[in-house]
Amino acid sequence: MSEIPSIILVRPQMGENIGAAARAMLNFGLHDLRLVAPRDGWPNAKAVEMSAHAKAIIEQAQIFDNLSAALADKQIAYAATARPRDLAIKIFSPFDAAQKLRQTPEFTSALVFGPENCGLNNEDIIACNAVVTIPTNPQNSSLNIAQSVVLLAYEWFKTANIAPEKVPEPAIFSEIEGLFSHLDGELDKKGFYKTPDLKPMMQQNLRAMLARSGFTLQEVRTLRGAIRALTANR
Amino acid sequence: MSEIPSIILVRPQMGENIGAAARAMLNFGLHDLRLVAPRDGWPNAKAVEMSAHAKAIIEQAQIFDNLSAALADKQIAYAATARPRDLAIKIFSPFDAAQKLRQTPEFTSALVFGPENCGLNNEDIIACNAVVTIPTNPQNSSLNIAQSVVLLAYEWFKTANIAPEKVPEPAIFSEIEGLFSHLDGELDKKGFYKTPDLKPMMQQNLRAMLARSGFTLQEVRTLRGAIRALTANR
Repeated sequence: MSEIPSIILVRPQMGENIGAAARAMLNFGLHDLRLVAPRDGWPNAKAVEMSAHAKAIIEQAQIFDNLSAALADKQIAYAATARPRDLAIKIFSPFDAAQKLRQTPEFTSALVFGPENCGLNNEDIIACNAVVTIPTNPQNSSLNIAQSVVLLAYEWFKTANIAPEKVPEPAIFSEIEGLFSHLDGELDKKGFYKTPDLKPMMQQNLRAMLARSGFTLQEVRTLRGAIRALTANR
Repeated sequence: MSEIPSIILVRPQMGENIGAAARAMLNFGLHDLRLVAPRDGWPNAKAVEMSAHAKAIIEQAQIFDNLSAALADKQIAYAATARPRDLAIKIFSPFDAAQKLRQTPEFTSALVFGPENCGLNNEDIIACNAVVTIPTNPQNSSLNIAQSVVLLAYEWFKTANIAPEKVPEPAIFSEIEGLFSHLDGELDKKGFYKTPDLKPMMQQNLRAMLARSGFTLQEVRTLRGAIRALTANR
């Protein structure tokens, strides 16, 4: 089965941009639009108007409270953002990201875009497996969100003929999140987070590590078994 | 010297799209914007507003009455359009067009885009050397003009490292137009256009042939000398 990437817009602000993104999706063969907490609520008349022939994509868009929920059933997620500093995450060009998606056509996937004014924050980025950075003029790198969607959708469309590769099938994000929660809960009980100030950052690092791990469902199960074994009262 | 392609918008309708095109140009290192007969006149407040940081591109945009005038000083022009039927003109992908531009960095060049509602007409297309067609979903191929500018500007930006090739330097379009006018005038005097109904199409074919010829200035001069020789009263 060949899966088609979803487009996830995180906290999008302007209806016009949501509509323009939908229109670009239709141009390049994408159809599943997911919105995380759109600023102006939903439905949005300006989004419908700007979407032109892509009205059906707007009408069928799914709304989520947070990125984690929007990603729950996905195996692969690319965060579209400028090159992040200080995050241990792989960075791909649009072509390389599109190529990797085409090499694993049976995996559920998403391209994730941030709000117009500030882009994705670090928490959003590390919830994904990897980053995709559009090369731009370094003096003027701020791309309109709809234009970023256009460029990544176009690269995906162009790479239709890339041959699939055999790659271990990653678990979906909700399974990864389950592993994190399990581990986090046990670590907390054992007093692993000694310094309350550092706890959020330590949690973030663990979560990021797991998100980009590419662990299969079987590996997630093995790790959860290991956690259970390590924490059993004997 | 390395030339940077101009963006020419032919009869653009919405100021917002002109602004969005300027913004995309800035993202990808382009700066020379030319407008042919913008529908709502010029200057246009919506274009300024939508251009964001690219206001200078809007302010320095040049306005022309017709495409021929906007192309006069150019040596290479690509018409951005869906694959044209029934026109004898070369068709390139965005990557191939960008690559060709990079291979001849010293030639003046332009990327030419049509109005929102109908795109470039055949007369506009054959005034260029070649066509660049963005691959899209065949069921929904109508791209927003600003998004077309984004995609071609992006491909140009990406191909920065392609090595130049030695290619004969084409004459600028005003020289080609001079050759056409010369030939056309002489043909007219000699009664070449026998059937008035067919005259416009015959002229169009001649003009198209010359526009895509890639003739150098020396070749243009040689041909004009030949026309003079052929038409001299002896």
